[in-house]
Amino acid sequence: MDRIVECVPNFSEGRDPSVVAALAAAVESAAGALVLGVHTDPDHNRSVVTFAAPPDTVVEAAVRAVARAAELIDLTEHRGEHPRLGAADVVPFVPVRGVTMGECVALAREAGRRIWDELGIPVYFYEAAALRPERRNLADVRRGGYELLREEIDVKPERAPDVGEPRLHPRAGACVVGARPLLIAYNVNLKTNDLALARRVARAVRGRDGGLPELKALGFELHSRGVVQVSMNLTGYERTGLHQAFEAVRREAEKLGVEVLGSEIVGLVPQAAIDRAAEHFLKLENYSPDLVLENRIAAALRRKGRGPEAAGP
Amino acid sequence: MDRIVECVPNFSEGRDPSVVAALAAAVESAAGALVLGVHTDPDHNRSVVTFAAPPDTVVEAAVRAVARAAELIDLTEHRGEHPRLGAADVVPFVPVRGVTMGECVALAREAGRRIWDELGIPVYFYEAAALRPERRNLADVRRGGYELLREEIDVKPERAPDVGEPRLHPRAGACVVGARPLLIAYNVNLKTNDLALARRVARAVRGRDGGLPELKALGFELHSRGVVQVSMNLTGYERTGLHQAFEAVRREAEKLGVEVLGSEIVGLVPQAAIDRAAEHFLKLENYSPDLVLENRIAAALRRKGRGPEAAGP
Repeated sequence: MDRIVECVPNFSEGRDPSVVAALAAAVESAAGALVLGVHTDPDHNRSVVTFAAPPDTVVEAAVRAVARAAELIDLTEHRGEHPRLGAADVVPFVPVRGVTMGECVALAREAGRRIWDELGIPVYFYEAAALRPERRNLADVRRGGYELLREEIDVKPERAPDVGEPRLHPRAGACVVGARPLLIAYNVNLKTNDLALARRVARAVRGRDGGLPELKALGFELHSRGVVQVSMNLTGYERTGLHQAFEAVRREAEKLGVEVLGSEIVGLVPQAAIDRAAEHFLKLENYSPDLVLENRIAAALRRKGRGPEAAGP
Repeated sequence: MDRIVECVPNFSEGRDPSVVAALAAAVESAAGALVLGVHTDPDHNRSVVTFAAPPDTVVEAAVRAVARAAELIDLTEHRGEHPRLGAADVVPFVPVRGVTMGECVALAREAGRRIWDELGIPVYFYEAAALRPERRNLADVRRGGYELLREEIDVKPERAPDVGEPRLHPRAGACVVGARPLLIAYNVNLKTNDLALARRVARAVRGRDGGLPELKALGFELHSRGVVQVSMNLTGYERTGLHQAFEAVRREAEKLGVEVLGSEIVGLVPQAAIDRAAEHFLKLENYSPDLVLENRIAAALRRKGRGPEAAGP
């Protein structure tokens, strides 16, 4: 695949593995869609399917999964702590390779239109796909959950959906569709049990408080290890990469006399973020992905027309 | 390709692009063989074709290229400074992924046998494929070049080939076939024009003089930039990687009061060497290639049977 969109639908079912498997199968029933991972959370009774697809099939895959969720999940019977509005609760489109955020916004809008037209589920757009500024933030859209929205959707104009009529689907509720940047979840552990110190470091490095752009950070305790952690989200790794985040945390911690123990990636990371870290620390003057043996092999396969591109849809 | 052998034949033609193109085409005429790069050197009148293939077709691809070289290159007409024994001068097999050095030795022996049987070109084995200790080192095998070997091959028993009779092919000469580890060529530039200092750093870091294992190093001047360089070969990057080499050079240079300007990779580098550098400097506690988005996509493609493995031979 030369052009890749990642889509990460969240579903309100995390206890019945057969339902989760059926949702993943619905995604892969669309040509070119590849499930990269499935995370189920029985406590929250939620699951997250991460899949990749070319832009021309990603909407089809997403809509098939939303349709299957509407068949298999009855939100009126659903119990779980996590706020949610629908059987297929959130469907974000994420640009990964050769695709712009603008294209992902267009894909989100197309998916939203089809989810209403074909399934009768009202749709709210969030983040980059939001049509109203107060809907950019997912937490704001979802506040009060299904239970509150059921009371308000046809009464309060500000809660009307962006696509469809102001009435919930009888079993599947509503669906929040959006476009957002690729996000790297990255934690750095510090050799101290001082939570206040971790929070101070987090404040110093995060964009909101004048630190690095596209970096969110919070301080946490890791009880099991007796140390603290600066837990970060990199929302634009091209601007603030793993290496900048790591170095900033190390610098701030050192100012406070504390050492970095190590770091960890949560979920998936694009190869480019790893490569850029190596490039930075090795002061590589001529780095290019074209120097990497495996990339040359992939390029040769594409050239000979035997790679995934040739076999794909 | 789950199992990859790299083969890097060197040919005694670097001036006629049509000949070089024909040699690369001969390689790719074998199923599953992929040319990753072609380097031609008009001064030395030599060219190097780097290709990758699964173990079951790499010998076929190599033998086809050697056969084509015997048709197109007349060594008796060849002029060039570089020592060489044949039209296809050196043919090393290099384990890259899922293949052992022992298997590459077996592939080299099979290729050598076929080069004699099918083409009538006598063969010498070198490095890991050597049958005599004095032939491990390529420079020793090739000393005096074609011109000296022509005088000695049927006179001096110690110059008899490992496969075939002691007579050169009338046009193609002889061929040196071997197995060797993957090699990363890696240079670190220092902020000084003091060549003696670069040589001192090189001595301190290289394995031969008690430094890092699997590391060869020499000091050079970079006239164009007015600085010096520690030019290295990493012959076992799993043991001594880019990051260890870089850190060792930096440490030794700092002892002598000199700063590292930057570094560069020459030729190709395996992704794992880049990843391990990032892992080291970021102190990543949980790194695995499985965390990388692109690797997940490749794994999903393989699982769905649409990847290169499925389409390949």
